[in-house]
Amino acid sequence: MIAVYPGSFDPMTNGHLDLIERAASVFDEVIVAIAPNVGKEPLFTVEERREMLSEVCRGLRNVSVDSFDGLLVSYVQKKNARVIVKGLRAVSDFQYEFEMALTNRRLAPSVETVFLMTSADYSYLSSSLVKEIAALGGSVQGLAPESVEEKLKQRLQEAVRRDTP
Amino acid sequence: MIAVYPGSFDPMTNGHLDLIERAASVFDEVIVAIAPNVGKEPLFTVEERREMLSEVCRGLRNVSVDSFDGLLVSYVQKKNARVIVKGLRAVSDFQYEFEMALTNRRLAPSVETVFLMTSADYSYLSSSLVKEIAALGGSVQGLAPESVEEKLKQRLQEAVRRDTP
Amino acid sequence: MIAVYPGSFDPMTNGHLDLIERAASVFDEVIVAIAPNVGKEPLFTVEERREMLSEVCRGLRNVSVDSFDGLLVSYVQKKNARVIVKGLRAVSDFQYEFEMALTNRRLAPSVETVFLMTSADYSYLSSSLVKEIAALGGSVQGLAPESVEEKLKQRLQEAVRRDTP
Amino acid sequence: MIAVYPGSFDPMTNGHLDLIERAASVFDEVIVAIAPNVGKEPLFTVEERREMLSEVCRGLRNVSVDSFDGLLVSYVQKKNARVIVKGLRAVSDFQYEFEMALTNRRLAPSVETVFLMTSADYSYLSSSLVKEIAALGGSVQGLAPESVEEKLKQRLQEAVRRDTP
Amino acid sequence: MIAVYPGSFDPMTNGHLDLIERAASVFDEVIVAIAPNVGKEPLFTVEERREMLSEVCRGLRNVSVDSFDGLLVSYVQKKNARVIVKGLRAVSDFQYEFEMALTNRRLAPSVETVFLMTSADYSYLSSSLVKEIAALGGSVQGLAPESVEEKLKQRLQEAVRRDTP
Amino acid sequence: MIAVYPGSFDPMTNGHLDLIERAASVFDEVIVAIAPNVGKEPLFTVEERREMLSEVCRGLRNVSVDSFDGLLVSYVQKKNARVIVKGLRAVSDFQYEFEMALTNRRLAPSVETVFLMTSADYSYLSSSLVKEIAALGGSVQGLAPESVEEKLKQRLQEAVRRDTP
Repeated sequence: MIAVYPGSFDPMTNGHLDLIERAASVFDEVIVAIAPNVGKEPLFTVEERREMLSEVCRGLRNVSVDSFDGLLVSYVQKKNARVIVKGLRAVSDFQYEFEMALTNRRLAPSVETVFLMTSADYSYLSSSLVKEIAALGGSVQGLAPESVEEKLKQRLQEAVRRDTP
Repeated sequence: MIAVYPGSFDPMTNGHLDLIERAASVFDEVIVAIAPNVGKEPLFTVEERREMLSEVCRGLRNVSVDSFDGLLVSYVQKKNARVIVKGLRAVSDFQYEFEMALTNRRLAPSVETVFLMTSADYSYLSSSLVKEIAALGGSVQGLAPESVEEKLKQRLQEAVRRDTP
Repeated sequence: MIAVYPGSFDPMTNGHLDLIERAASVFDEVIVAIAPNVGKEPLFTVEERREMLSEVCRGLRNVSVDSFDGLLVSYVQKKNARVIVKGLRAVSDFQYEFEMALTNRRLAPSVETVFLMTSADYSYLSSSLVKEIAALGGSVQGLAPESVEEKLKQRLQEAVRRDTP
Repeated sequence: MIAVYPGSFDPMTNGHLDLIERAASVFDEVIVAIAPNVGKEPLFTVEERREMLSEVCRGLRNVSVDSFDGLLVSYVQKKNARVIVKGLRAVSDFQYEFEMALTNRRLAPSVETVFLMTSADYSYLSSSLVKEIAALGGSVQGLAPESVEEKLKQRLQEAVRRDTP
Repeated sequence: MIAVYPGSFDPMTNGHLDLIERAASVFDEVIVAIAPNVGKEPLFTVEERREMLSEVCRGLRNVSVDSFDGLLVSYVQKKNARVIVKGLRAVSDFQYEFEMALTNRRLAPSVETVFLMTSADYSYLSSSLVKEIAALGGSVQGLAPESVEEKLKQRLQEAVRRDTP
Repeated sequence: MIAVYPGSFDPMTNGHLDLIERAASVFDEVIVAIAPNVGKEPLFTVEERREMLSEVCRGLRNVSVDSFDGLLVSYVQKKNARVIVKGLRAVSDFQYEFEMALTNRRLAPSVETVFLMTSADYSYLSSSLVKEIAALGGSVQGLAPESVEEKLKQRLQEAVRRDTP
């Protein structure tokens, strides 16, 4: 069974990594798929996000990294996958996830959304939180892979430079 | 009893239509009232939204379509209505609805907010979802009235053209 | 429009009274309907609950008190009503209410469940809370009508007497 | 991948059936496992529940029915399964499910709990609801498989006979 | 500031201990207060629960253990305390806690309920879960203090002996 | 015990004032700390918000008003405080508050987040609601201190003037 784990991963966190490892232990093949940005300006380009994900997932032999445009379910079907993997955090936005899962079921009834639970250690973690902490000068050690931490610090310093007159 | 069903209807969905029909079966007269846009730029003008709603509701004899500025409760009172109708979806943002209902009660204690449940079939549906699906090239058939579907497709193509350099 | 407001009212609280008054301002006729007890042993008999409700609602001319057996929707239809009124408390069990509303819609599609919001003052109030406070020797003044308060005190003293060897 | 779908199935509903079919489409093998009753007296014996489940699942070639005692995770490991399947309903008790999933992860870190979404049509459905409707004389047609419906009617009539003096 | 941390502690868990330590770091004095049992039969007597708590809390110099009857707020006032401490778990029953806090505020406006967050590690933990795991033959190591673990095993074996004919 | 009550207070509401008074009754010293704006443009400058808060809190002898940049926990530690006070509203965004509290615990384990409950009267109140009502021409009397009400009216008229061509 091939499973697609979609997200914006802007940037990836240790919560994402935890979920990728869980998915890799349940499904034959896992495709981590960077979703198109709807609305908000990303901090990292798709290419940069792909690199970070690829580096961190190198050790997981049944995991690959990709990106897609258009509808998620179209991408899933193109990849001959039948499962969308999503993470549920104990502290999380069920409603949005439910809305998306029910919508995707409507658009493609044969594709099943499967929820895995993130480790309780990362139940509070999200990309935007990681960005906020870093932007306020805090350390994200333990919240994101080291390579991501480094790139995040760099990027935010650039951003601050751009924002400050 | 006159009831006002407010919303931004940008654009209307089949979930809205479901709720209008339910409200029309409970109250003597239902005014579908397009609310002023606070903050975000709408996809359709008030006039366009009014036309779409009017066309779809033509068959419902005790339903009329209108728009308002300023506070909802002021509009309700001006219309001699005493009831605000809101939809509750099984998958929905209660907290925001509750906040609004308690606020409106504070502003106008004699106006009662009444919640009806959307059909389970549309529990995941929202205007923004419909827009997102359409924007990503998906079909919104069954999610919005046909006339809306057509106009939505048109508008988003224009938007894409404007956004793409 | 005739509306049925069902509940166990064991005993009625000021939150129930608040909701009855709101329903009476929205619908032409409101039937307060004491539901059959499923499972748990009531503190007051149906007859006692009916008396308490009738006394308190005496001043509301379009409100009557009744009790029923069997399915709620069957009772509603027998009464030529088309609306079930339920209270939503800001601090409340939506999920149970939603389950019941969706079930009732399935059993009788033409009957609509309508939710009104209890006053914020009573958002924490329930029959079981009132019973618990009274059982622990606390005053329920302001939480239940005076006549109920009196009967509650009596009943719980009897209960204590029975429970204590 | 072998998955275990545990529950009390007292009795099974169409919501359970929907979930079994979804699980069977995602995993190589699905074991429907009747859990021991903690606390409350069941309506049907484990043997009766097993028969009902077996009959209904006969057509699903990668689904088997079993029952277990003791801890779920011990059973899962004994069966060489690594996945527990649970249903999430849009209108559901996440908190309890989360508590159980986190507990099971603690007891057996290598066993993953995977959540699938029940069809929106059954989002309000539960065994206790089906029992309550039947007990009040309502029809559960469309809510439970026909064979279950029949047995349920029988059993509740016996129960009524026992309860009524 | 004296704070009262009420609960049934039947039996205490590592989640309770975590909260007692947090409360002890915030308030001058913490009274762990065993509440009267309303309704359900406890597994341990008040005396046994007090002993377990006292043993575990021996090292915390500003923590004492007590039990009370009647209303919590009456007990709090008798102890000259002005704060009730409650734990919030990420996976928890807010609604019940909110109901109780609002009720206690009504009964005694000068007593403030203060919520602390249990460690994420214990977010799924409750006395009933610990009892259930032990009853099913699982290990509660790491979920409850060792001394509690021992007593729990003993008690449940006695219970099983009583239940099994 | 010194406690820090952070927020954007843009502008302060009667709900904030209610919470400040509660915090001042529980802790030895309360610092109301205006947080840096992340993302959205504020209506009032930090200096204006500080003035409004200072004026309203003048009568509370153990309350001071300040502002900070960077991470909240760094500020808390610099102030030798060990407690962050946050308000929980019956109708509120727990999830966000939980995320923040768990994050802050991770960043500074010795700092405890303590939640107090806002009065039920203000359970629906937020700065953005107050701004929205005022922007739509409604009265915020009773929702914000008088001095704030006045400044709000002024500011929004200026805003309208700027927005309207």
